[in-house]
Amino acid sequence: MYVILVYDFKEKRVGKILKHCRKYLNWIQNSVFEGEITEVKLKELLIGARKFMNEEEDSIIIFKSREERWMDKQIVGVERMGTDNFM
Amino acid sequence: MYVILVYDFKEKRVGKILKHCRKYLNWIQNSVFEGEITEVKLKELLIGARKFMNEEEDSIIIFKSREERWMDKQIVGVERMGTDNFM
Repeated sequence: MYVILVYDFKEKRVGKILKHCRKYLNWIQNSVFEGEITEVKLKELLIGARKFMNEEEDSIIIFKSREERWMDKQIVGVERMGTDNFM
Repeated sequence: MYVILVYDFKEKRVGKILKHCRKYLNWIQNSVFEGEITEVKLKELLIGARKFMNEEEDSIIIFKSREERWMDKQIVGVERMGTDNFM
């Protein structure tokens, strides 16, 4: 499935969540990722994130769509990141 | 149509873009909005944003879907904002 993931983490944990998400998805903007992922891998991503996130302070929102073609993407302004599947 | 809007603006323009987007969409996380909007209203939102954004430094990404039901939303951790259509 295709997902868009956005996080809002406290400063001190931002580096960790960024690095963690990059293992699974493509980084497209500051705290925004997108990409194809299976339910199993997404679960793994969230279990991993929960190990260091503070659920009282940090948040992750995931928008899931069965197919990417249902979403149309428009970028205005600087396009900060390319597709960075590799690390 | 249903849209998800995420912005990444330089600190000094963050307040402006936040206030601007709230006129059109629901604020759901730090720099993330969602909601139903027409093409005309979305154009208006972007024309307005372009008046103060620096296109070399700031960015807006919009994901559009014809129908909200195509997207499934999952929130992990703190749910910072409710639906805040009113200002």
